[in-house]
Amino acid sequence: MRGLLLVAHGSRREASNDEVRKIADLLRQRAGDRYGAVEAGFLELADPLIPDGIECLIRQGASEVVVLPYFLSAGRHVAQDIPAEVAPKQAQYPQIPIRIAPYLGSAEGIVELLVGLSE
Amino acid sequence: MRGLLLVAHGSRREASNDEVRKIADLLRQRAGDRYGAVEAGFLELADPLIPDGIECLIRQGASEVVVLPYFLSAGRHVAQDIPAEVAPKQAQYPQIPIRIAPYLGSAEGIVELLVGLSE
Repeated sequence: MRGLLLVAHGSRREASNDEVRKIADLLRQRAGDRYGAVEAGFLELADPLIPDGIECLIRQGASEVVVLPYFLSAGRHVAQDIPAEVAPKQAQYPQIPIRIAPYLGSAEGIVELLVGLSE
Repeated sequence: MRGLLLVAHGSRREASNDEVRKIADLLRQRAGDRYGAVEAGFLELADPLIPDGIECLIRQGASEVVVLPYFLSAGRHVAQDIPAEVAPKQAQYPQIPIRIAPYLGSAEGIVELLVGLSE
């Protein structure tokens, strides 16, 4: 079973974290044929943190985990901080592939979404 | 002529600001039939700031301006800071409608994009 962890920065404003959890809920409904479990995770300031989110997916039976960065730019968080949080889990579970997907801002479809919003 | 200002937070990391400018370039190509001018603007830390971006669109002949927040959550920046930067320009140009479009994170298509990235 594959598990998906949607990773956002995390905010002191709980409503922002809830927005991310809501997107994870929608992903669970939408990608249910490809992912047996979908969770939200946070780099800081909110729960679960990334390692705990990965652990939760593995406890649910994930034999493969995809970490999906809900970030718009390829900054330090995407390039360094998220991989640094994922690495210990990769070391802990060498038999479970844990990979990081491209970040949201790199999706080509972003421009189409913006065109739609601008109408 | 309508002008579109894509507004991001702005970063000390210039490569992140350039990512936003690149998205604005793509929007210019994509929405060229509906927008005679498209610019990137920033809340802070990068140029042009929002008022300067709006001014630039008006100087190019915009008789209507749409401000499009390139933000994932409906936090303080979207709810308060962007409107506060736009308001003086609305007051300065009462004959030019300047409106703020829904922020990126509110687009329903976000979930589809994420599904695509997770594959």
